[in-house]
Amino acid sequence: MKVVVVGAGLAGLAAGHELRRAGAEVVVLEARDRVGGRLEGGEIEGFPIDLGGTWIGEGHTRMHALVEELGLETVRTWNDAGKVLVQLGRRRVLVEGAKGAVPRLNPVALADLAQGLARFGRLARAVDPDQPWGHPRAELLDGQTFETWIRRNLRTPSGRAYFRVATEAVFSADASDLSLLHALFYAVSNTDLETLLAVDRGAQQDRVVGGAAVVADRLAVGLDVRFSTPVAMIAHGDTGVTVTTHAGEGFAADRVVVALPPTLAGRLRYDPPLPAWRDQLTQKLPAGTVAKTFAAYPTPFWREQGLNGQVACAAGPVKVTFDVSPASAEIGILLGFVEGGEARRWQRLTEAERREAVVDSFVRFFGPQAARPVAYVEKDWTSEEFTRGCYGAHFAPGVWTSYGDVLRPPVGRIHWAGAEYAVEWNGYMEGAVRSGIATAQEVVDTVRPAQRRKRSQTSVTR
Amino acid sequence: MKVVVVGAGLAGLAAGHELRRAGAEVVVLEARDRVGGRLEGGEIEGFPIDLGGTWIGEGHTRMHALVEELGLETVRTWNDAGKVLVQLGRRRVLVEGAKGAVPRLNPVALADLAQGLARFGRLARAVDPDQPWGHPRAELLDGQTFETWIRRNLRTPSGRAYFRVATEAVFSADASDLSLLHALFYAVSNTDLETLLAVDRGAQQDRVVGGAAVVADRLAVGLDVRFSTPVAMIAHGDTGVTVTTHAGEGFAADRVVVALPPTLAGRLRYDPPLPAWRDQLTQKLPAGTVAKTFAAYPTPFWREQGLNGQVACAAGPVKVTFDVSPASAEIGILLGFVEGGEARRWQRLTEAERREAVVDSFVRFFGPQAARPVAYVEKDWTSEEFTRGCYGAHFAPGVWTSYGDVLRPPVGRIHWAGAEYAVEWNGYMEGAVRSGIATAQEVVDTVRPAQRRKRSQTSVTR
Repeated sequence: MKVVVVGAGLAGLAAGHELRRAGAEVVVLEARDRVGGRLEGGEIEGFPIDLGGTWIGEGHTRMHALVEELGLETVRTWNDAGKVLVQLGRRRVLVEGAKGAVPRLNPVALADLAQGLARFGRLARAVDPDQPWGHPRAELLDGQTFETWIRRNLRTPSGRAYFRVATEAVFSADASDLSLLHALFYAVSNTDLETLLAVDRGAQQDRVVGGAAVVADRLAVGLDVRFSTPVAMIAHGDTGVTVTTHAGEGFAADRVVVALPPTLAGRLRYDPPLPAWRDQLTQKLPAGTVAKTFAAYPTPFWREQGLNGQVACAAGPVKVTFDVSPASAEIGILLGFVEGGEARRWQRLTEAERREAVVDSFVRFFGPQAARPVAYVEKDWTSEEFTRGCYGAHFAPGVWTSYGDVLRPPVGRIHWAGAEYAVEWNGYMEGAVRSGIATAQEVVDTVRPAQRRKRSQTSVTR
Repeated sequence: MKVVVVGAGLAGLAAGHELRRAGAEVVVLEARDRVGGRLEGGEIEGFPIDLGGTWIGEGHTRMHALVEELGLETVRTWNDAGKVLVQLGRRRVLVEGAKGAVPRLNPVALADLAQGLARFGRLARAVDPDQPWGHPRAELLDGQTFETWIRRNLRTPSGRAYFRVATEAVFSADASDLSLLHALFYAVSNTDLETLLAVDRGAQQDRVVGGAAVVADRLAVGLDVRFSTPVAMIAHGDTGVTVTTHAGEGFAADRVVVALPPTLAGRLRYDPPLPAWRDQLTQKLPAGTVAKTFAAYPTPFWREQGLNGQVACAAGPVKVTFDVSPASAEIGILLGFVEGGEARRWQRLTEAERREAVVDSFVRFFGPQAARPVAYVEKDWTSEEFTRGCYGAHFAPGVWTSYGDVLRPPVGRIHWAGAEYAVEWNGYMEGAVRSGIATAQEVVDTVRPAQRRKRSQTSVTR
């Protein structure tokens, strides 16, 4: 069996790897001159940084196994020493790092927030991540924005600010952009909202030593990856597929796995064209809006102030930060996320203005010592032609109930893979790998019965 | 000056026409083997029908002028004799055709509906269609779905049903799909919700004799239109553009007008890639979901029953119908719209099942005489590779406030045109023509100062 995989991100590589294991002949077509997709290695002052996907969370078993299998190691995200700085209203509070998910606020705001989190949790637990549209009140939940739910269920400005900052941090989108049902689905797909926000025992628990992109690099070893080969068209029929590149080169195969973010999968031409529902689905799965920014300092000076480098703040452009200094602490590196509406405003500034705005945020959080980084690096994922937004796609109101059931099934000989297709750990590296493996299995399974049919037909003919 | 226009729909043709008038050399590249885009002529029993855009409303001055200029004529939509059939709850009511916008219901539902319409109207009048994001409470209005507003502001099932059926009829989308701000923008761009729904003095007032597509056909006369020429890539820079087709042919020009629906404009490749904000905008402008269905009968028999062929019903698949019989009434033709969620379910049926479902709707509305049409025609616009949904794009929550200001401005030498870009009569043929003309003017204006600059530089050099 011959399979073409479009896209050498984590899902495409995992699918390719798994297909090869099953004996298939695999070619991976990659638009960029590197593998990894939304994983990319960078460096600041000679130390490796993750320009894209970074963390492996608790329960991300496939990723942990893969890291071990590929001879790599993880380190814990800096979390133990020092406190998280939280500023949702006027007042700053410091929270023990290990318990950062719910900050200490004034009693009224705290009660409001606790009640909101409990309500959200109850709602989320009733959603089946395999088919969110199956919820008995799916249309009601999908007919409103997450913002509408926040306004109705949180009463205090700090409680609302917490949910909005959390939404930006988790979805790199604003609460107005999301269907409530999608927010619930995503939470339950990743255990719960608290896990999504947590470091220890949460989604930000571990980092790969050397950078997450090394996982993709090693996974690609032995695979036939064609670089700088953007795909223009996929012709498909009863007997096979032909994938044609923008340069006009054709690759014939039995099956194709399109391992692109949905919005990019929708930009290819298909012959015959995709069914209406599949095309309209990809029209409705926009990617989030996020840039990662890094500033390096001679030392992780914030640690001396009793801070662990983590911030959650209602005022931007940077609202969420992490300490991503090397384990040796030879230098200090702060990571700042610019997300959603903040990213849209920030993107249109000049490079010098963008850097200034980010450093200003760091100074606001960590004091004047943050004013003069020795180096600054930024990566705006929405500007990348072959990604067009991170971390992943989000579902606007109405989309899960209208098109959810056509998200995962293949269209004839065209199969789909990516973090957006995962039932568990949707949106994470773990979800991408699980989706890639599941899709490879789906491809293998569709061929096996056909071979059986062929064999039995042959015996009848004989 | 040389200009390439991508797309020979009404906006592209109007732009091409206007550019030629201004002395530009124009090539129009069209993916299909016909002009018209979302306008297409069809026939049933030898009589012409509009498979796509149909009506010219009151106030659509450019379209009326164009029809006259091109030697064409309009007829009034059948509306005078007979009554509109409305069924929003259990009870059917008949309403005078000329006053169809607000049905007579029980007093409680009527008061609810009247209050809802008045509230919506007040809200809409405060929105500036040129910049909906400028409304003082824009984020609040854009942070919720139209469905949320309907649930909050309408109390009776019939009142809510009216708004939902109206949403489907006007947007070919469900109230859950739309931002409240978008619903308000669209209403005010087209005068008000009542005008959008009305026939006489409304958006459905007139039809073009012979079909609306004839307007496109005649507008194309004299223009250099290249058929079956889908565009793959637009290279653009400081000195000009090169538009490359999927077949590899290149067209060099000073400027390019992309007159495609936004979701299709987002599928082209651009070199250099478009800025993040423009790309993310087109990721977030999905097209509506609609099919038009037609059944022909020996006579317009419903007229004898005192009905004018117009229906608004809360139960589908067909919820809205019109009498589109020829003026001579030689035969009777019913037009039935299948929209939003109804269209998504209906699309997946077999052709025979689809026809049966439509005819069943007609029988429910007009009795057993509707059971045996002499002919049946359907057109599903979401299945069309080079349209991918009608009538037009809709803005989900958060999109107007996040990306509204980058909708209309050109990106370097790339200009945009289409019904989605119109300030007035957005979404209609009138809006498409106005947008095409405005964009042509924008192109001409950007060249003029450059020529002036060149001239003055020359004189300095001399």
